[in-house]
Amino acid sequence: MYFYKEDLINMIVPDKPDPAAAKVLQEALGGQFGEMRTMMQYSFQSANFRGKDKQYRDLIRGVFLEEISHVELVQTTINQLLNGSGEVNDAGNSGPSQAPLADPVMHGNPHHYIMGAQASLPVDAGGNPWNGSWVYSHGNLISDLLNNVILESTGVLQKSRIYEMSSNKTFRETIAFLIVRDNAHQNAFAKALETLGVNWGKVFPIPNYDINKYPECRKYVEMGYHNAQFNFRLDSTRIGEIFTGESPSRDSGDLQVTDPPKGFPVPDLPEMPNEHSPGLNDLNQ
Amino acid sequence: MYFYKEDLINMIVPDKPDPAAAKVLQEALGGQFGEMRTMMQYSFQSANFRGKDKQYRDLIRGVFLEEISHVELVQTTINQLLNGSGEVNDAGNSGPSQAPLADPVMHGNPHHYIMGAQASLPVDAGGNPWNGSWVYSHGNLISDLLNNVILESTGVLQKSRIYEMSSNKTFRETIAFLIVRDNAHQNAFAKALETLGVNWGKVFPIPNYDINKYPECRKYVEMGYHNAQFNFRLDSTRIGEIFTGESPSRDSGDLQVTDPPKGFPVPDLPEMPNEHSPGLNDLNQ
Amino acid sequence: MYFYKEDLINMIVPDKPDPAAAKVLQEALGGQFGEMRTMMQYSFQSANFRGKDKQYRDLIRGVFLEEISHVELVQTTINQLLNGSGEVNDAGNSGPSQAPLADPVMHGNPHHYIMGAQASLPVDAGGNPWNGSWVYSHGNLISDLLNNVILESTGVLQKSRIYEMSSNKTFRETIAFLIVRDNAHQNAFAKALETLGVNWGKVFPIPNYDINKYPECRKYVEMGYHNAQFNFRLDSTRIGEIFTGESPSRDSGDLQVTDPPKGFPVPDLPEMPNEHSPGLNDLNQ
Amino acid sequence: MYFYKEDLINMIVPDKPDPAAAKVLQEALGGQFGEMRTMMQYSFQSANFRGKDKQYRDLIRGVFLEEISHVELVQTTINQLLNGSGEVNDAGNSGPSQAPLADPVMHGNPHHYIMGAQASLPVDAGGNPWNGSWVYSHGNLISDLLNNVILESTGVLQKSRIYEMSSNKTFRETIAFLIVRDNAHQNAFAKALETLGVNWGKVFPIPNYDINKYPECRKYVEMGYHNAQFNFRLDSTRIGEIFTGESPSRDSGDLQVTDPPKGFPVPDLPEMPNEHSPGLNDLNQ
Amino acid sequence: MYFYKEDLINMIVPDKPDPAAAKVLQEALGGQFGEMRTMMQYSFQSANFRGKDKQYRDLIRGVFLEEISHVELVQTTINQLLNGSGEVNDAGNSGPSQAPLADPVMHGNPHHYIMGAQASLPVDAGGNPWNGSWVYSHGNLISDLLNNVILESTGVLQKSRIYEMSSNKTFRETIAFLIVRDNAHQNAFAKALETLGVNWGKVFPIPNYDINKYPECRKYVEMGYHNAQFNFRLDSTRIGEIFTGESPSRDSGDLQVTDPPKGFPVPDLPEMPNEHSPGLNDLNQ
Amino acid sequence: MYFYKEDLINMIVPDKPDPAAAKVLQEALGGQFGEMRTMMQYSFQSANFRGKDKQYRDLIRGVFLEEISHVELVQTTINQLLNGSGEVNDAGNSGPSQAPLADPVMHGNPHHYIMGAQASLPVDAGGNPWNGSWVYSHGNLISDLLNNVILESTGVLQKSRIYEMSSNKTFRETIAFLIVRDNAHQNAFAKALETLGVNWGKVFPIPNYDINKYPECRKYVEMGYHNAQFNFRLDSTRIGEIFTGESPSRDSGDLQVTDPPKGFPVPDLPEMPNEHSPGLNDLNQ
Repeated sequence: MYFYKEDLINMIVPDKPDPAAAKVLQEALGGQFGEMRTMMQYSFQSANFRGKDKQYRDLIRGVFLEEISHVELVQTTINQLLNGSGEVNDAGNSGPSQAPLADPVMHGNPHHYIMGAQASLPVDAGGNPWNGSWVYSHGNLISDLLNNVILESTGVLQKSRIYEMSSNKTFRETIAFLIVRDNAHQNAFAKALETLGVNWGKVFPIPNYDINKYPECRKYVEMGYHNAQFNFRLDSTRIGEIFTGESPSRDSGDLQVTDPPKGFPVPDLPEMPNEHSPGLNDLNQ
Repeated sequence: MYFYKEDLINMIVPDKPDPAAAKVLQEALGGQFGEMRTMMQYSFQSANFRGKDKQYRDLIRGVFLEEISHVELVQTTINQLLNGSGEVNDAGNSGPSQAPLADPVMHGNPHHYIMGAQASLPVDAGGNPWNGSWVYSHGNLISDLLNNVILESTGVLQKSRIYEMSSNKTFRETIAFLIVRDNAHQNAFAKALETLGVNWGKVFPIPNYDINKYPECRKYVEMGYHNAQFNFRLDSTRIGEIFTGESPSRDSGDLQVTDPPKGFPVPDLPEMPNEHSPGLNDLNQ
Repeated sequence: MYFYKEDLINMIVPDKPDPAAAKVLQEALGGQFGEMRTMMQYSFQSANFRGKDKQYRDLIRGVFLEEISHVELVQTTINQLLNGSGEVNDAGNSGPSQAPLADPVMHGNPHHYIMGAQASLPVDAGGNPWNGSWVYSHGNLISDLLNNVILESTGVLQKSRIYEMSSNKTFRETIAFLIVRDNAHQNAFAKALETLGVNWGKVFPIPNYDINKYPECRKYVEMGYHNAQFNFRLDSTRIGEIFTGESPSRDSGDLQVTDPPKGFPVPDLPEMPNEHSPGLNDLNQ
Repeated sequence: MYFYKEDLINMIVPDKPDPAAAKVLQEALGGQFGEMRTMMQYSFQSANFRGKDKQYRDLIRGVFLEEISHVELVQTTINQLLNGSGEVNDAGNSGPSQAPLADPVMHGNPHHYIMGAQASLPVDAGGNPWNGSWVYSHGNLISDLLNNVILESTGVLQKSRIYEMSSNKTFRETIAFLIVRDNAHQNAFAKALETLGVNWGKVFPIPNYDINKYPECRKYVEMGYHNAQFNFRLDSTRIGEIFTGESPSRDSGDLQVTDPPKGFPVPDLPEMPNEHSPGLNDLNQ
Repeated sequence: MYFYKEDLINMIVPDKPDPAAAKVLQEALGGQFGEMRTMMQYSFQSANFRGKDKQYRDLIRGVFLEEISHVELVQTTINQLLNGSGEVNDAGNSGPSQAPLADPVMHGNPHHYIMGAQASLPVDAGGNPWNGSWVYSHGNLISDLLNNVILESTGVLQKSRIYEMSSNKTFRETIAFLIVRDNAHQNAFAKALETLGVNWGKVFPIPNYDINKYPECRKYVEMGYHNAQFNFRLDSTRIGEIFTGESPSRDSGDLQVTDPPKGFPVPDLPEMPNEHSPGLNDLNQ
Repeated sequence: MYFYKEDLINMIVPDKPDPAAAKVLQEALGGQFGEMRTMMQYSFQSANFRGKDKQYRDLIRGVFLEEISHVELVQTTINQLLNGSGEVNDAGNSGPSQAPLADPVMHGNPHHYIMGAQASLPVDAGGNPWNGSWVYSHGNLISDLLNNVILESTGVLQKSRIYEMSSNKTFRETIAFLIVRDNAHQNAFAKALETLGVNWGKVFPIPNYDINKYPECRKYVEMGYHNAQFNFRLDSTRIGEIFTGESPSRDSGDLQVTDPPKGFPVPDLPEMPNEHSPGLNDLNQ
């Protein structure tokens, strides 16, 4: 069973609205290599796990638990990027009082304004809805672990590209945190394969990047987040049997299971009367 | 942030393998009105919530938290129904030693045996993958709540039909538990609309069914599960401001927020060497 | 604007329930070459029509109007095939009182019993939902007409194969009527291309079949339905400028615009309390 | 059977081309809560209706009939918005004589210019094709009616947001008409639930909006369109047994069944030789 | 079996990067009427061919073989249009050093930069992935050939529209070559139907266009490419029994089977370190 | 450019029709890990390849070329399994003369008989069409190679399960050949990663299976097919720089580039008049 404390796993850094950034950040939420995919893939792999070597199940489930918080973090970041974007003026059209959404839907995702009240959706950067066929849970531990390595590696690779699409601080802080955590999860699954005999040589991290290039990443590296696995279990777990010892990556260091971050406040989303959201005003009078 | 204790929210009752039952039960997992939809819909609605009336957000999030456990329960039930189904003989074909999967794929979902190692998948009873476009999160509280009422009501309606598709005990116990809990969630969202002025008259429960017709449901009704909202929060919640007082349904009684069930053991899934699952045997030697 | 009289365009012939037949007949309703496709394709082609040669638009719209009635006819036929199918006994399972739907979902479409109350759905024979990308409306009259020829020809070809999948009379009567009408529509679009200079030689009808092979078709041929275009317009139409003169098919005869059939009663669908359909009983007390 | 008179259900107000408006208006045609969905949903619900209380079927079918005209109205509006949009100059590119479509595909839907000859398509504002899985027809009258309430309410909610995306008059007039009619249909289904005992209190209209905020809506309200159900039946109907008496909405007034609007001319779509539409010119010489 | 020589079937003409052109050109690669569709459709039709008249199979397979090269040509053209597009400055945003991809994803396909390293994808101009349901292979030779005629005709029609979307030379040269080749394939399938008795009159070419309007097409017409079928067989073929004699099109001339073009160099794609592509640098040290 | 010789890459072993086997074998053709996916993935990866280390591109392209032949082999095998399946009697239905397709559509894929003339389709074992979103071509060589390892490994894993679904000889011979070839391709991509420093230890082959368990595989292993890469290039290739030396798998041996198999005859598919395929009979008289 699953329990909850109303805390975000990382902070939301304030900046201006940015509908185009919100649109591309959807890839990290509802895309083929986004957080909904990791969450559901590890949910199925841990529920479908066969056999007695449950330290591997505990590892997969441990990452699954963190991904639920990642989904919430990206949803919240997208909401922050969309908040107030309908007030942005639009010289080329007819002025904010007449068509305040004309401008944001130009470069943003129109569904953010039609299906959401300037809020996140379960779709990717192209607007395609999340799809269950992406989940890989074949029940063969090695193929499942290799697929997880690819999933996390592609997550970092895509985020290193999405990072270049806006310099908005709200956007980049969340991407940077997720890059570091995807890195840790890449290490987790690579390490699990090491316990089965693989020696990865110099291939990790994938992609072959200098994490110090991203100033927002640096503090998380200094906090050791790239080599930590947060433990969200209220009972005991065997995750530490695998997630221990030297990192499989050239970004060396020792892997260790730690407590989760202390938790960060969930920003309040203001009412949006123009969007009829939440739309309770007169009813409550 | 989300925390976990390795307990199922309800028991798994043992019975024989039943691939056809596993196939149709997928509707309750990956179908348009199944548990993955409820889980993701309430995740988006609670993360995207606007305004100050957070008792409604707490209600939606409270149901969301339970749905994560429901997903795990249905995954585990499907696995139990599939376990050992490949040994079933098949007179019309060439015998179990030669084509042991010929029979189960006749009436089951072939992907349970190709993509899963006799295990659950994120698809519906027709094999269609779960789809993000099903999530409704428009940010208008009344339309979101009405959609949730329909979602839970359709959940019960479909499960009352799926129940007729097999008399397998593993299958029916889980369906019965979910019928009662969908009923409670129907009550939760209907009650929230009552606080906004709606008087539902005699329309609930939807469908208009006698819950005593389902022997497996009765004990859950006696335990008051149809009028209870389990609380999975580790911090405080305002859910009790709404989920209280008389039930909006003809199945009367008082609504109350309670502790979750005590938790039930997760069954061990045996190794399946024929499916190469988990496939570690020789490697570990 | 569109007007309605509660009449079916053809009769429903009674026979036993046949869930497998209902499943495959869905191809003629929600399949890529089924009646929903023809209806929507001609709707878009007539609304999007450019230029002054409106006799072609009137022809396309004329067929569109009939297709709305075809959709209703196939929906009704599928419902008739499903009616009472839940009572069919199943020796291999546990008896009708315990799992009355175990048998019909074996060879039928499970969604007929989960999403529908033993009723039609907008899906094809494989359970895939109808999809808007199938609609062809490119605005070039010749390519649109050629696509329509292929659409109607493939409709006949598929129905001549579906016909072989059950000898149920309800099933075959509707297929036979639709074969003859698809034939007429094939003639309509082929004739329109004749007015633009094409001489079809011996290629029509497609497929190259003897319509007399289908005993159910014969009476419709004798009534001239293969060379008739029914006129559903309440105002004037120029359809007769094209749909006239010799048939473009080897099944010769003269094309003519006629009144629609006299209309046939819509069968009453009985209540299905087990399916909670319509589910009003106690409420109305 | 279905009959037709070549009249639009509302007028087309002329204004300049607006490809971005055409793109977002597609949501009201081929979107999950657009007119194709309402048309097909009510088609299936009325054909699949079970039992004797046919006043409900007549109500659902009555709305279905109007939706066929709505589809035609939105198709025609989109066409009007696209007409001539290829001539718009584009300073940043290479000039109209060299790449006249470079500019409109920037903010419009490229498929409007590739698959259509500057014409409507069965897709939503994000370009996703219409999908049959959206149709809800479960055969339980209460769940079907509640789903219809949500469908119409979401239709208004979305249109109140789409309205803000352009001040183009062609665009806004059609949206305004549809908002008022969705309102009437919301009333119809809410009223049907009132006959089953529900008292809606103050929740309607959904969203909680002031219809006078939309100047284009006002005249339709003054004509009583928000409380009228147009009757397109050529035979008798029992729709008046339900659609009568006081509105279930705070926008009070008495519901009544009336004649349809008088009908409005279908605008001529000019030939577009550059798009090879209709492409008959030389052939007819 | 299939053999390969590293040559493109046509040249790549250099010009500036153009992300918007790359986006719309995807229609010709992964769209419903693009080269992946033609390749796969003719692959299935030739493998599934029944009966003894194998000159028709050889014709279909002959076109199939060329389409594999077309896929490679369009992939390479899109890559050329994307190369270096990330360096394009963006005054309105924060400058290339800070968000170099902000500008190209505005009017381009974001997935070209997220899923591809500025490279081609199996999607259409709207970003929808290629879909197997588009393949038409019904096994009736006449309906298959008619569908092929429509497929090639729609290919030309769409490309004549896409041509208007950018004046980029890389873009237009490839489109022009493909227009002429689609024209030849249109002739091939139309001619095959002529052997079965059809006389096409004046309908071909579809669309009814003056190929001389496209300056880039002219040289290919002068080389006779519109009336040639390239032969990629290493063994003998009966294609010449059909593809011979007078063209079925008003663009007259004699059809003949010829050798393929001489082959053109595949441009080198530079490394893109910012995209981590290929990402080998440090590893190879 | 691509060239062709009408030879299959492996033999077709005759056996009885088997519609259920044809249905599940579709996974190896149009499934997420089937031959269409491998063919298109390597097509995109080789066309999109960046940088100078072209020995890797030559390796990927080399496998791509073989996959085109694999597609043809699986298409042909499915056709062989379907041939004559319509004649199978059906005691429970009405006899072969009346509904000859009633039986095969029970356990087969109905679309094999509706959309195909008893012939292969671009769909998976569940009838879902092939989808372009499955193609992975991110342009980072290591992530692309890792994804290819997973793709080939999952191909073997799935085929080892599909093998258990029928003992039909036509079916098993093709599966066995493909298992051995997927094994060779697994080796190819694993070896490429070895050149970048990875030491795989004991993880290969994936799954961890004894290839001698499959009697049909043994002869291909004896021919060295699991360690061979066939060369389909008509010009030179650098593939041998990578595909050489010791196998990365516990199934040891030396890798080497060899000539393709000698080629096997394509079976003639008989006419099927009942399916109107090819449907030329009377026309040719």
